[in-house]
Amino acid sequence: MTCRSCMPGAPRCRTLARIRQAVAALLLGAVALPAGAEDRAPVEPPAGRTMAEVLAAAAPADWRPLDAGHTLYLELDSGRVVIELAPRFAPEHAANILRLARQGYYDGLAIVRSQDNFVVQWGDPEGKRPLGEARATLPPEFTVPLAASLPFTPLPDGDGYAPEVGFSDGFPAARDRQAGQAWLAHCYAMVGAGRGNEVDSGNGAEVYVVIGHAPRQLDRNIALVGRVVQGMERLATLPRGSGPLGFYEQPAQHVPIRRVRVAADVPESERSRLEVLRTDTATFAALVEARRNRRDEWYKVPAGHIDLCNVPIPVRSP
Amino acid sequence: MTCRSCMPGAPRCRTLARIRQAVAALLLGAVALPAGAEDRAPVEPPAGRTMAEVLAAAAPADWRPLDAGHTLYLELDSGRVVIELAPRFAPEHAANILRLARQGYYDGLAIVRSQDNFVVQWGDPEGKRPLGEARATLPPEFTVPLAASLPFTPLPDGDGYAPEVGFSDGFPAARDRQAGQAWLAHCYAMVGAGRGNEVDSGNGAEVYVVIGHAPRQLDRNIALVGRVVQGMERLATLPRGSGPLGFYEQPAQHVPIRRVRVAADVPESERSRLEVLRTDTATFAALVEARRNRRDEWYKVPAGHIDLCNVPIPVRSP
Repeated sequence: MTCRSCMPGAPRCRTLARIRQAVAALLLGAVALPAGAEDRAPVEPPAGRTMAEVLAAAAPADWRPLDAGHTLYLELDSGRVVIELAPRFAPEHAANILRLARQGYYDGLAIVRSQDNFVVQWGDPEGKRPLGEARATLPPEFTVPLAASLPFTPLPDGDGYAPEVGFSDGFPAARDRQAGQAWLAHCYAMVGAGRGNEVDSGNGAEVYVVIGHAPRQLDRNIALVGRVVQGMERLATLPRGSGPLGFYEQPAQHVPIRRVRVAADVPESERSRLEVLRTDTATFAALVEARRNRRDEWYKVPAGHIDLCNVPIPVRSP
Repeated sequence: MTCRSCMPGAPRCRTLARIRQAVAALLLGAVALPAGAEDRAPVEPPAGRTMAEVLAAAAPADWRPLDAGHTLYLELDSGRVVIELAPRFAPEHAANILRLARQGYYDGLAIVRSQDNFVVQWGDPEGKRPLGEARATLPPEFTVPLAASLPFTPLPDGDGYAPEVGFSDGFPAARDRQAGQAWLAHCYAMVGAGRGNEVDSGNGAEVYVVIGHAPRQLDRNIALVGRVVQGMERLATLPRGSGPLGFYEQPAQHVPIRRVRVAADVPESERSRLEVLRTDTATFAALVEARRNRRDEWYKVPAGHIDLCNVPIPVRSP
């Protein structure tokens, strides 16, 4: 069955979506099927808006500024990387990272690992710097209880790694109503707190960023703490390490970190003025639809589907 | 329902897989569900082999050499990138690219585009070099007819972009039995032939490589012609272009291509000796299972699922 006019809100597609949800609810935990079968057959690109058109029509209120108290500036020789923390999903980690940053813990440390199609990671190469007021172990904030207050904008498409995926506070996320849990998803540019084999051994002193295809197998196994909203190219282009797991083998290869500051502590004039598109808006829903079915002339077969980690979360300098 | 001992071949899991397949067949084209629901609940990592253990136990026959007649060496200042062509999926494109390489068409050209989390692309910056014996337009080899002879090792998990995904000749691929089509999938390191808006405008003179999260929306919209089997880091770390679509804005930023040769035309002593794990073997099936449910001590919650583009296709120097 094809869905020839899968525009957002088209009656037939709404009906199909309802049937899908109902059957999904019935079969949850019993059997599983590939997602999106009805959307998959080649169809003519429906007349609709492109992402550029959606963004051009966005209202000022569709954008939100970054919270300076939960924004980090990672300063490298190549320039600034801006990280938005996710305190709703990893409150203890976010607090510890803010503590470490304010103590100057990261200043003068280095990026010590760059593994192709996986992650870059920074921390203390010597492992000797004292944590000061920061905590050495933290509770494993790999998931959070699924509270009714948790904002969650579901993606219309299924996902193999979670019962439901979507966006929460502007981060790619997943939830499992049966298990009563929600968690952030390991998409490109997501930032996490490295840990050892013990689940409480992550404390934010070692931080990694996803630079390749989404390693979703890490979901629920480690605490994601935020997302790079500007400057990913400064991390993704770092030379790969030739040691095991992409660690640099020589200290001379380490990429120096000049300093890490909390945006709120930086003079206004030195702050990066950035806004992120709110993911709980009609504009974002239209963007997702524009990406599920590309409408520019180049595309001949719209996918009728989108993978969570293929949805861009636009950032702009107003 | 959890599946506490989802080892390859465990009776209960085989039964579940059969039920899943049967219901999938019944409902195909009617409704769709998120995949993998029964595998998703947190379970203890089953006792089983890690990928390292699987590879250590591989037989010599599990590996295949590259076909020198369908292997390209892209020589950059930073070193060699080895590309395996996929003539079964794009025979005309593969033939044209071999023709162009043997004419020296690519020699002295440049990588002109590097778009973060998407692709790098090379070709003639001036657009003036004659194609010689090569063809200027080619049939759109975006899909191939699904012949019974097409090798295909299905992945056990569902996929949102295609009814079925798996591996064919060592490449990530998809097939649609209803439509009678198969195609290669846009995973990290896949190589394609750029085209304009006309479907026959790709000819292999412009080539792109995926360097980010799999842009699966390109599947069936453009001809994939092969995969980088060695040297991806030389492409993925190139500075990003600051122009639209990641094109470099200054000719000085172009990354020179010394030359592109067909491995068969290179003296034996200068060839890269590489072997690729056969994807139609029990060893590869065990590898997939080892990645669906990670068994090393670090992982606490096995995913019970794997995304097509998260399956590594191992390459070794024997």
